[in-house]
Amino acid sequence: MPLETNGERLWQRLHTLATFGAREDGGVCRLAFSDADRLGRDWLCQHMRELGLQVHIDPIGNLFGVLAGAQPARPPVMTGSHLDSVITGGRFDGSLGVLAGLEVVEALRETGHTPDTSLVIAAFSNEEGARYAPDMLGSLVYCDDLPLSEALATRGIDGSLLGDELDAIGYAGPPLPDWLQQPSAFIELHIEQGPILEQQQRDIGIVEGVQGIHWLALRFCGQSNHAGTTPMALRRDPGLVACQMASELRQLTARDKGLRATCGRLQLTPNLVNVVPAQAEMTIDLRHRDGEALVSTAMAVRRMAQALAVAEGVELNFEVLADFAPQPFDLTLIDAIEHHSTQRGYKALRLYSGAGHDAQIMARRCPSAMIFVPSQHGVSHNIDEYTAPEHIHQGTQLLADVLLERLSA
Amino acid sequence: MPLETNGERLWQRLHTLATFGAREDGGVCRLAFSDADRLGRDWLCQHMRELGLQVHIDPIGNLFGVLAGAQPARPPVMTGSHLDSVITGGRFDGSLGVLAGLEVVEALRETGHTPDTSLVIAAFSNEEGARYAPDMLGSLVYCDDLPLSEALATRGIDGSLLGDELDAIGYAGPPLPDWLQQPSAFIELHIEQGPILEQQQRDIGIVEGVQGIHWLALRFCGQSNHAGTTPMALRRDPGLVACQMASELRQLTARDKGLRATCGRLQLTPNLVNVVPAQAEMTIDLRHRDGEALVSTAMAVRRMAQALAVAEGVELNFEVLADFAPQPFDLTLIDAIEHHSTQRGYKALRLYSGAGHDAQIMARRCPSAMIFVPSQHGVSHNIDEYTAPEHIHQGTQLLADVLLERLSA
Repeated sequence: MPLETNGERLWQRLHTLATFGAREDGGVCRLAFSDADRLGRDWLCQHMRELGLQVHIDPIGNLFGVLAGAQPARPPVMTGSHLDSVITGGRFDGSLGVLAGLEVVEALRETGHTPDTSLVIAAFSNEEGARYAPDMLGSLVYCDDLPLSEALATRGIDGSLLGDELDAIGYAGPPLPDWLQQPSAFIELHIEQGPILEQQQRDIGIVEGVQGIHWLALRFCGQSNHAGTTPMALRRDPGLVACQMASELRQLTARDKGLRATCGRLQLTPNLVNVVPAQAEMTIDLRHRDGEALVSTAMAVRRMAQALAVAEGVELNFEVLADFAPQPFDLTLIDAIEHHSTQRGYKALRLYSGAGHDAQIMARRCPSAMIFVPSQHGVSHNIDEYTAPEHIHQGTQLLADVLLERLSA
Repeated sequence: MPLETNGERLWQRLHTLATFGAREDGGVCRLAFSDADRLGRDWLCQHMRELGLQVHIDPIGNLFGVLAGAQPARPPVMTGSHLDSVITGGRFDGSLGVLAGLEVVEALRETGHTPDTSLVIAAFSNEEGARYAPDMLGSLVYCDDLPLSEALATRGIDGSLLGDELDAIGYAGPPLPDWLQQPSAFIELHIEQGPILEQQQRDIGIVEGVQGIHWLALRFCGQSNHAGTTPMALRRDPGLVACQMASELRQLTARDKGLRATCGRLQLTPNLVNVVPAQAEMTIDLRHRDGEALVSTAMAVRRMAQALAVAEGVELNFEVLADFAPQPFDLTLIDAIEHHSTQRGYKALRLYSGAGHDAQIMARRCPSAMIFVPSQHGVSHNIDEYTAPEHIHQGTQLLADVLLERLSA
């Protein structure tokens, strides 16, 4: 018998969670390990306990609510996402995946039936990377792909030490029991954060994998000079080179339709109208679903920056801020999602995720997959982020159907 | 008989003045109407009075020290510059022109001879524009090219009201007597602030005029979006357009060798690695010695920005921050400077000033000209600004020679 979730209850809960870190403009700012994050965590833990879940916190602050199965020796099935947001965030990114899991548990509880396999709701720490790099830090530590000590020693954009802030909010726990580190599957519900589902009028995105991500920080150092008195031929203008790089980046995407390339951050020093800058710092965000193409593009970008820097006589330093290979999801889970979506009569589309998600890290540990619901106007990381209640409910229902199948498998 | 100035005395005095607003890194921060500016003014007034000069302060705080001639009905000869600095200033910009004038007076006093014509040492207010826009504000008010009431109502970068700050340092004076508003000539000694004299191994720059200046502020507004999920074809990236503009600017200077073009300021919002910016603000600094070329370039830049904005689907707003036509200097004074430079055996070069100066404003009121001395490495508006003592002395000597000729004319 299929499990029926309560869309209205989930919708209300999403809005209650959004009060922790609420911005005056209607958005949400719940940076990792901030006071707002702590309040959101406290609220979630209270709800989990009220539903009879055991709450586990690991040493990096990942939070797990466990609905114990009748046969607790079986590897658990896991779902979830994250609670942290960017500075100008909305109410759905991350929160949906955690609270949809909670809704599935509550709906299960209401049937009075206890599944054989345990179900775990995860809320991973610092997924956004908005305060501490890299993003998906919590799931990386969970999967042993980032040493705990290194994660704790991370400096934030505000100069804070991650470990200090984690201690301050009281969410540094003991090591997890072994069984909680070996789930049999991980399924994450998330908003698309892009415009494709809306444009194609679909209810559901069946995520085949996550694009690879390569983040570069470039620092060009030149010679600060008076804008009026310095002949053009004698200039060593790092700001010009950064701008040339950004222009060239767009050219690259015209030649490779699978590439997404963005210069989102650009900082001139001293940044004055009549002074040739001394320094320009920029970031480059590259995405590709083809791992080899991503690697070769990253190399081409570095060569291009080097050539432009040499031509202008400025120095160049590189730093790789993030590097994730493309991650395909588990074919069996993908098929299961598609099957249940068809059963429910939803209009679905298979697609790749352009954004990074905890599920791509979890895929290294266990079979993983994702379900997307449409983002209005494709907008996310933005106070106007919105997904219609019917889509929220459809995605949650589909998550429930797939989880239920796994719990009985 | 030529007048011999004392280079050592002037050098010492430059360094004493640099103690008012001294920065810990060795530079000078003496923003207009700041406490440091007041201290510098107090010190200058004291020296002027000790040399027997009458001190006049006008309503915008311009400071004049008058060495009364034997025939005071004659229009006076004026020299001078400014005392204010940028935030990261040095010891020579502006200060040299004022203190060299003082040195000429002191050398004259030592001869015991009183010239027929009065000699005026001017220190104009807020030449840099670093605290209050526009730059050259004091000389603009002196020349009736900016209404006093408008100047006093200017808001500074720190939010302060110019009139309040002027009152606070006690340098708002009564209207000047008519004779002090009609000099027969204005000659300003200044550091080059550029690399040309040093590169060509010259002692003296004979300034033929000042390039025209046109400052534009451009604001591009697009659509902030997720860098990973937003297909390239759907982007409206204002940061890209700003960068394309900066690249195109450099192309313009390749086609017009008389043009200097700089993007010194560029600000993305929200300026995050994985977010397509919502907004990009940039400034463009254009300089040209040909007024018509400057106007047509400014128009071409606006058309170019408009075309790039339309192509990317972003909105564009313009603001003109400054606009000064090129100002040629007085040919008779230029010839006189060259004559005396040759007499002294200095290696001189005729050139245009790339920076703005009070002399270009004064040229609207009376025959005006400038003398440049070399800037080491062409650096200015920088704590490393430096001019060798021998060049300081040569420039001052040349100023004395030209002033003396004018005083006896």
